[in-house]
Amino acid sequence: LLDNDARLAKPFEAMTRSKPPPGTPDRRRPHGGAAVGVALLGCGTVGSGVLRLLAENAAYFAERVGVPIEVRHVVVRDVNKERTADCDRRWLTSDIERVFADEAVELVVEVMGGIDAAGAAIERALGSGRSVVTANKALLAERGPRLLELARESGADLAFEAAVGGGIPIIRTLRDAFASDEVGEIVGILNGTSNFVLTRMKESGASFASALAEAQRLGYAEADPTLDVGGHDAAQKLAVLAMLAFGVRATEKEMLVEGITELGPRHFAFAERFGYVIKHLVIGRVRAGKCELRAHPALVPRSSVFANVTGSLNAIKLEGRALGPCFLSGRGAGDMPTAVSVVSDILDGARSIVAGIPGLITRGRPMKPCSHLPRGDTTTSYLISLDVADKPGVLAAITAALAEHAVSIAQIVQTRGEPDAAEVVLLTHEAREGDVMAAREALSRASFMRAPPFLLRIEDV
Amino acid sequence: LLDNDARLAKPFEAMTRSKPPPGTPDRRRPHGGAAVGVALLGCGTVGSGVLRLLAENAAYFAERVGVPIEVRHVVVRDVNKERTADCDRRWLTSDIERVFADEAVELVVEVMGGIDAAGAAIERALGSGRSVVTANKALLAERGPRLLELARESGADLAFEAAVGGGIPIIRTLRDAFASDEVGEIVGILNGTSNFVLTRMKESGASFASALAEAQRLGYAEADPTLDVGGHDAAQKLAVLAMLAFGVRATEKEMLVEGITELGPRHFAFAERFGYVIKHLVIGRVRAGKCELRAHPALVPRSSVFANVTGSLNAIKLEGRALGPCFLSGRGAGDMPTAVSVVSDILDGARSIVAGIPGLITRGRPMKPCSHLPRGDTTTSYLISLDVADKPGVLAAITAALAEHAVSIAQIVQTRGEPDAAEVVLLTHEAREGDVMAAREALSRASFMRAPPFLLRIEDV
Repeated sequence: LLDNDARLAKPFEAMTRSKPPPGTPDRRRPHGGAAVGVALLGCGTVGSGVLRLLAENAAYFAERVGVPIEVRHVVVRDVNKERTADCDRRWLTSDIERVFADEAVELVVEVMGGIDAAGAAIERALGSGRSVVTANKALLAERGPRLLELARESGADLAFEAAVGGGIPIIRTLRDAFASDEVGEIVGILNGTSNFVLTRMKESGASFASALAEAQRLGYAEADPTLDVGGHDAAQKLAVLAMLAFGVRATEKEMLVEGITELGPRHFAFAERFGYVIKHLVIGRVRAGKCELRAHPALVPRSSVFANVTGSLNAIKLEGRALGPCFLSGRGAGDMPTAVSVVSDILDGARSIVAGIPGLITRGRPMKPCSHLPRGDTTTSYLISLDVADKPGVLAAITAALAEHAVSIAQIVQTRGEPDAAEVVLLTHEAREGDVMAAREALSRASFMRAPPFLLRIEDV
Repeated sequence: LLDNDARLAKPFEAMTRSKPPPGTPDRRRPHGGAAVGVALLGCGTVGSGVLRLLAENAAYFAERVGVPIEVRHVVVRDVNKERTADCDRRWLTSDIERVFADEAVELVVEVMGGIDAAGAAIERALGSGRSVVTANKALLAERGPRLLELARESGADLAFEAAVGGGIPIIRTLRDAFASDEVGEIVGILNGTSNFVLTRMKESGASFASALAEAQRLGYAEADPTLDVGGHDAAQKLAVLAMLAFGVRATEKEMLVEGITELGPRHFAFAERFGYVIKHLVIGRVRAGKCELRAHPALVPRSSVFANVTGSLNAIKLEGRALGPCFLSGRGAGDMPTAVSVVSDILDGARSIVAGIPGLITRGRPMKPCSHLPRGDTTTSYLISLDVADKPGVLAAITAALAEHAVSIAQIVQTRGEPDAAEVVLLTHEAREGDVMAAREALSRASFMRAPPFLLRIEDV
């Protein structure tokens, strides 16, 4: 993905250089078949939804693709299990070899989930020149660049609209609407569980634990919610978007990732007092050739368009050089939104197969080579809350510690709490993350501190 | 557009039934050319932007289309006028016949504007089997269904992403992301001028006239702003979206259209007091086979995602049966956002040409036949403001008049103004538009009324 310039010098090489193994559909000849053959790997709720939508829209899709889309195999663990009416029993098999032995299968739809088996199947499908549609965000975050390379080498498509933002058409917007534009910034709310929990904490004053329990009861959070509330799921999605928008590879190591588990009612009270709402944001930017990727809770102004993205909704804002801001929001998860997105990819993939040209290739415009911004060089403004002993000289010591680390203060509010205790809340001007962390470190060692300092970044998005 | 069922019965008929005139590129054979030839009609700021983006992205587009996109003609009034560097002087001509005589031109891009000449050129291009990209919303609102029919008959594409919502990818979202879904509702802010004026009136307490003058000074409003502030531009855009989403044809006659010219500071004070923001909305819905299309100012809750769509931004919310809500916002106008959208259509159109299958055909899924909901049958809740003489019995008379017309009251606030005068503000429960209009008519004849009643619809969007 990083060698765009080399690739652009020989734009058609990718389509011709591979030697396809036997049994590979020849993508370089105009499509002569009577249908585009499809195999589904997995048939849970999303897979069943996909089969239903393909059946319901068969005539329309045949018109848009030029030939019908024909389901040929549905690979499942248990062929005897009850299936919905849209699943023809003759398609069912537990043997994935039947898919790869069938030359008429040109498009493989992976809705089985997991990393290893799904990854192996996708690699094999792409390696044999077949296009792939997947909703598997964890797999893409881990192996996305390698899979895209494989797709490019064999002249196949790899589509994954459903992997980020569920029913929000973010991937096709990046690919198609921004085709002639450059994306400078991505900001988003990409984890529905976290957003639901934060929304409930704000509305009801609930603790994190009780809001999370409610989310679990309502099916918005998994039994083990670590991936979601720890910020890791949002970071994976940001990695996928950054790969498309900026052409960079990133793992959590190159990102600043924090979850929402430390937040409590008092932080919502701060937010309210200063005119903010707490949201778990992802932020991706390229500035002066440096890429900055973060996923953490933040204070956003009450007038921000993100402030009203509530419950389990997701939202993404792209900033294009020419298009300006483009904001999308919708359901970030759910079986039917995911199925609709998978089917939109099947439609696009089938059209590309008929055209004989992969069309879903990632943004390949020449990008300036870009490296990761060191975490400490990130700049933003901060809310810092300090539990201190209420005695003379404390405020002077605090302001001196911040000044020493070049952190400039915009506002200070001091509240008396228990006897001899006070809470000092500071809003800073824009400062370097590294400087703020050093100031926090210095403050946490001061004798007047009654608890570790608490920080929230402020994002004017 | 309304005979979808008939069309679906013979899905390929449209592509084969026309007898193309001589000089027509044959779309039914796989594309054998070395490039997709393009002609631009018009070369103002949008056209120049299009040429620049095509030049900048030439290698990337060649990869995605399979062959390069080749500009062959740029039709302008004055071939001697100074042009930007991206406009090769050899392309320039003032003779549109050169376009139609050139078999290598397969895609015509209309960025000249106006109705008659642009319409004739587009009809001729489509009639000769050439695909067309246009940003001409006024033309589409007037002749869209006929042009789409023409495109369908000749197996060509008609693309118009830039015609609605400028840089917001609403058309491709309706077409691609919702390909297997059904749209039940569209709500939007589609006129940037009105939204800018309303935003300034709210922020500064300005009158309509002074906010409009500011918009004109800043280039957000035309010298003659009637089309924008009268609601007509928004209604045209709604007509285009309704054609795609619901398969209905509509002109202003079938819609409820009102502008923002009657609004003043006191209405913003009502809105503020009751927790609303005033926005000029378009609303399109299909319920029980009846289509409802409206464009008018409305009170939206402060917590609505539309409340924070400020300045000249546009926004659109689609409600999909399976996808759920999908909200998009961005720049609704401007030369570069428009050019980026035009270029994204050129890319899609060129891919379809190479595939030999029109791909941008409008949503063709079987729709239940739907007729227009009579205006009086629309239901919503209302804010009604009445300037009345302050004397005993007035409130009783008002409530009686509303009760008589089946309009139920949710809240009444009475404020004393000048001596002997009062202002009564009522919020109603959901009521029929026809009943509310009859109640207003009755009230306006009452002896205690000092001015005509004023109404604002409340939309919980």
